[in-house]
Amino acid sequence: MIQITLPDGSVRSFEKDVTPYEVAVDISEGFARNVISAKFNDTVVETTTPLTTDGSLTLYTFKDDAGKKAFWHSSAHVLAQALEELYPNVKLWVGPAIDNGFYYDVDLDEGSISEKDFKAIENKMIEIARGKHDFKLRDVSKAEALSYYKGKNEYKVDLIENLEDGTISFCDHSTFTDLCRGGHIPNTGIIKAVKILSVAGAYYKGDEKNKQLTRVYGISFPKQKELTEYLELLEEAKKRDHRKLGKELELFTFSQKVGQGLPLWLPKGAALRERLENFLKAAQKKAGYEMVVTPHIGSKELYVTSGHYAKYGADSFQPITTPSEGEEFLLKPMNCPHHCEIYNAKPFSYKELPKRYAEFGTVYRYEQSGELHGLTRVRGFTQDDAHIFCTPDQLDKEFKDVIDLVLYVFGSLGFENFTAQVSLRDPENPDKYIGSDENWEKAEQAILSAAKDKNLNFVVETGEAAFYGPKLDFMVKDALGRQWQLGTIQVDYNLPERFDLSYKGSDNEMHRPVMIHRAPFGSMERFIAILLEHTGGNFPLWLMPEQVIILSISEKYEKYAEKVLVSLENDEIRALTDNRNETVGKKIREAEMQKFPYMIIVGEQEEKDNTITVRQHGGEDLGTINVEDFIKIVKDRISKSLKTFK
Amino acid sequence: MIQITLPDGSVRSFEKDVTPYEVAVDISEGFARNVISAKFNDTVVETTTPLTTDGSLTLYTFKDDAGKKAFWHSSAHVLAQALEELYPNVKLWVGPAIDNGFYYDVDLDEGSISEKDFKAIENKMIEIARGKHDFKLRDVSKAEALSYYKGKNEYKVDLIENLEDGTISFCDHSTFTDLCRGGHIPNTGIIKAVKILSVAGAYYKGDEKNKQLTRVYGISFPKQKELTEYLELLEEAKKRDHRKLGKELELFTFSQKVGQGLPLWLPKGAALRERLENFLKAAQKKAGYEMVVTPHIGSKELYVTSGHYAKYGADSFQPITTPSEGEEFLLKPMNCPHHCEIYNAKPFSYKELPKRYAEFGTVYRYEQSGELHGLTRVRGFTQDDAHIFCTPDQLDKEFKDVIDLVLYVFGSLGFENFTAQVSLRDPENPDKYIGSDENWEKAEQAILSAAKDKNLNFVVETGEAAFYGPKLDFMVKDALGRQWQLGTIQVDYNLPERFDLSYKGSDNEMHRPVMIHRAPFGSMERFIAILLEHTGGNFPLWLMPEQVIILSISEKYEKYAEKVLVSLENDEIRALTDNRNETVGKKIREAEMQKFPYMIIVGEQEEKDNTITVRQHGGEDLGTINVEDFIKIVKDRISKSLKTFK
Repeated sequence: MIQITLPDGSVRSFEKDVTPYEVAVDISEGFARNVISAKFNDTVVETTTPLTTDGSLTLYTFKDDAGKKAFWHSSAHVLAQALEELYPNVKLWVGPAIDNGFYYDVDLDEGSISEKDFKAIENKMIEIARGKHDFKLRDVSKAEALSYYKGKNEYKVDLIENLEDGTISFCDHSTFTDLCRGGHIPNTGIIKAVKILSVAGAYYKGDEKNKQLTRVYGISFPKQKELTEYLELLEEAKKRDHRKLGKELELFTFSQKVGQGLPLWLPKGAALRERLENFLKAAQKKAGYEMVVTPHIGSKELYVTSGHYAKYGADSFQPITTPSEGEEFLLKPMNCPHHCEIYNAKPFSYKELPKRYAEFGTVYRYEQSGELHGLTRVRGFTQDDAHIFCTPDQLDKEFKDVIDLVLYVFGSLGFENFTAQVSLRDPENPDKYIGSDENWEKAEQAILSAAKDKNLNFVVETGEAAFYGPKLDFMVKDALGRQWQLGTIQVDYNLPERFDLSYKGSDNEMHRPVMIHRAPFGSMERFIAILLEHTGGNFPLWLMPEQVIILSISEKYEKYAEKVLVSLENDEIRALTDNRNETVGKKIREAEMQKFPYMIIVGEQEEKDNTITVRQHGGEDLGTINVEDFIKIVKDRISKSLKTFK
Repeated sequence: MIQITLPDGSVRSFEKDVTPYEVAVDISEGFARNVISAKFNDTVVETTTPLTTDGSLTLYTFKDDAGKKAFWHSSAHVLAQALEELYPNVKLWVGPAIDNGFYYDVDLDEGSISEKDFKAIENKMIEIARGKHDFKLRDVSKAEALSYYKGKNEYKVDLIENLEDGTISFCDHSTFTDLCRGGHIPNTGIIKAVKILSVAGAYYKGDEKNKQLTRVYGISFPKQKELTEYLELLEEAKKRDHRKLGKELELFTFSQKVGQGLPLWLPKGAALRERLENFLKAAQKKAGYEMVVTPHIGSKELYVTSGHYAKYGADSFQPITTPSEGEEFLLKPMNCPHHCEIYNAKPFSYKELPKRYAEFGTVYRYEQSGELHGLTRVRGFTQDDAHIFCTPDQLDKEFKDVIDLVLYVFGSLGFENFTAQVSLRDPENPDKYIGSDENWEKAEQAILSAAKDKNLNFVVETGEAAFYGPKLDFMVKDALGRQWQLGTIQVDYNLPERFDLSYKGSDNEMHRPVMIHRAPFGSMERFIAILLEHTGGNFPLWLMPEQVIILSISEKYEKYAEKVLVSLENDEIRALTDNRNETVGKKIREAEMQKFPYMIIVGEQEEKDNTITVRQHGGEDLGTINVEDFIKIVKDRISKSLKTFK
């Protein structure tokens, strides 16, 4: 008999060689029907793997990330089989599960796959799936593995040659066999719905000097309904793609001449950024932050001191030299070293701490051009950065105050679903970390107690702390349920040491301050991209580039339209007029597309009665009212959604 | 007989060989007594030089810049003689007049000069001056000149070897002779007051590989009173040195680790900058500008297109390379190419012009470390930049509107004395300039008519235009009478060509827009430096980092002081409290030094009566009043000095 411990802590006894599936049945037959993957003592196993020792078992359904992974990994096997049947000359390389679905990299020889072939591949996959073939993992010797592929598939031969004998396994299902480490669902029959999403080129081993293979992307689900929903979501996400919306709303652009990954903010986008910055500045002012301004370069020496040069120098934008004097500068990849030098500009006593230096600091980091993506992956971006220098005793309160600020920011911008991750050090490797045990203990307790105090929905990840200190990251879910990492709060014992920061304590001795890095938005670029995709461009009213458009029914009412505009502008409502010689129907359609929260229509009746007719984007029409009432409605709506901090 | 034309256009006849001094006597004996230098047909001559042909003659007194130059140049001869007499081993190199005084570079062999020696040098110079020795210029042959110095002074020998025979002259006065091109006052007796100001090291030929010589700086005047006044001004300027004030007021700092010439803005300085920026932003918004945001780097290609790379590339910060992909970027030395790319992001019709793109754009330009000076000469600075893209027909109005904006900025900041310079092209060299004759004509007329219309006090400099267009520069005089170049407005036909900018005209054809570069402040760094020196740190009230300090007489009144603080802050008056356990006398002295415009003192009586006692920096005390009245006084004073634009 062996003892199996389940995640809820309960322990059950089974005969040796019990399988995870049988344990599931022992829990409940209904549950067992949905179990598709398992983990035994931190190792992924098949649901059919016999368990031979005592241990902890976790069972996964499709709802779990690990379950999805097994499902999509198994679906990649089915895709590979389908490709082999449809393209007899195909040679397989590798085919992993990814965040949303799976892919397989294949060498099609002279052949190619295009969108018109997707249906045939999907049909073939479903045909195979319906055969309800079991996935069977078996160990093979290296010699056996090599002889299976030799002369048929040089990619697999190369893979196997780099593996150690005794660690190699094959997976069989139906007539198909693949080199594989395991982690499958019980059988192909569970795969009910399949979609091939796209094809792309992918260099063998990621090296552009090698042959370009074909990467086939797909996704699969246990239910047709789930696939339909996913495809709808995908369609919606495409509409909300921030690159598309950014262009339509004229927020930003890129220029090859300026350089890839270096956004140019157009007037409406720059105004949006500024509103976000002013919003945070106002809250930061109340929270006792002071703004500073630092240059976008620093001498190489600065980054040698901070340790960044040794760590990232080779992979970064290379040093800027001067025509004489032999100096070397680096584009600033982060603001912290500059802020440390500001702290060092004068001596502080403990009574003057904390110092909270904030800057919308634009930093530059090299990314390969292939990795650039709209505003979410750029080469230059502006952090809503701040560094707090405090005594170890002040850390607790400072951390809580930063959380308050982050929650205020998320709340004001309509991100209601967020989770947090607390990253602590690995207690078994204390040498990996800088800073005294006592300070780490203090900092970790400060973070944990702050997270509890503020009722955060958080997970604790032990061993995930940076070498310089523990941290707290915030993840938000957007309107499509996608998760994004936004704000971060990090404790740092390293830079105060490297920059020899100090303050005079109440004991008249010099002490090291602790440093907190924090950025509620993360970066202006990334945040605005996520906000665009979250809201689909329908920003909170206070943030909208233009809040109102005034459409005149014909040119005759242009003067009245301009008069209404002046009234709105006097009350600081952002508005514009559309007095073009077009039909009001066309004007309304265009205004809808541009997502103006309010559309005001003015014609003969309105001019006569000194009123306006108001339509609301995605809301009830307000009918015909007078301008003062409309201004009040707008101001009320803004003050309800945008509260002041504290 | 020869005909001499005077600056007022009058012509007088003289015998050949008349001297400028004799012409002056002919005009008026009183005037002649003050004439110390002259220019004949664009050549500087001695007042004793015989004139042998018809020509134009200008006579200078010490009041003229050319007169000062001759005076100080001659004084440098006297300094050289004094040094030879006091330091027998001295070897002279060169000794020119400069903006304020003169210097002489000398090799003192093993000797040295320090402040304690200044008095002796001054006394020796005055002793020589009192001898009323005439300055006598005489031509010498190269051989003669070489033999004079050979074996005695290798520096002069080297100078002479690089001169052409027939162009060499010596100047004698008293027992002293120097290699010299001329431009002297009649005799040493005119020099009545002398001051040695400082000594510094100066490399021979400016090359740090050569021997370091000693540079002795001095200044001299025709009257003792003028020297006294100058020294007082110098003392005041030292007190107002923006580097000193910037440190005292905690506005900015420099760090060797960050790099020379790269200012770090401390909280109070950053807030000051932001207030200035917000002030200009508000005016710009009213004037129809749109803010944009662009990166601080651009691909090398961008500057090849703009032409900047060919022109400045070698003397600039060198290109930034990437670890892979072989890309090259440059730190942005100006914002215009980025703004051109923003203009190019979408097509415009003439109806949509002008586009006015504004950005507080931080740019980086390499300067040799020896040329760096506080905030006035830096390697990174933020321009209050904007580029206006308009049709040629709109240029006139746009130019006038920009002048209005510049005048508004200067007026709001207390710069009342300013002059302007209009730089036009050289009509005799039309090939030097880009753009059609017609457009140049239009642009020059636009600038001239705008300058006249706006009643500017301006001079016209023909031939001083940039190759790409005419311009208008503004010079302000600060409180010490020193002149600074601030704002600039420039027309540009070049970049629209190079970036292929266009708009669709009313004729449905594509046309080139004209571009205006403009920056009322010039740069935030330089402007703040000048403002600091102009105001001595007593900024206009609306701009002060802190407007009010509240001093409690003892710790007992801390609570009341904090209550007053809250009242002021609620009305957006920037204030702070000083509740330290110090005497009120000490607190007042420190507050005076930090230039708080208002000091509020609170003690027993004030708390009892719910009043405050108010002192004003450099103004009348307001006595004991209640807080509401004080707030009204402050707000009135601000609204009087800071009017809104238009």
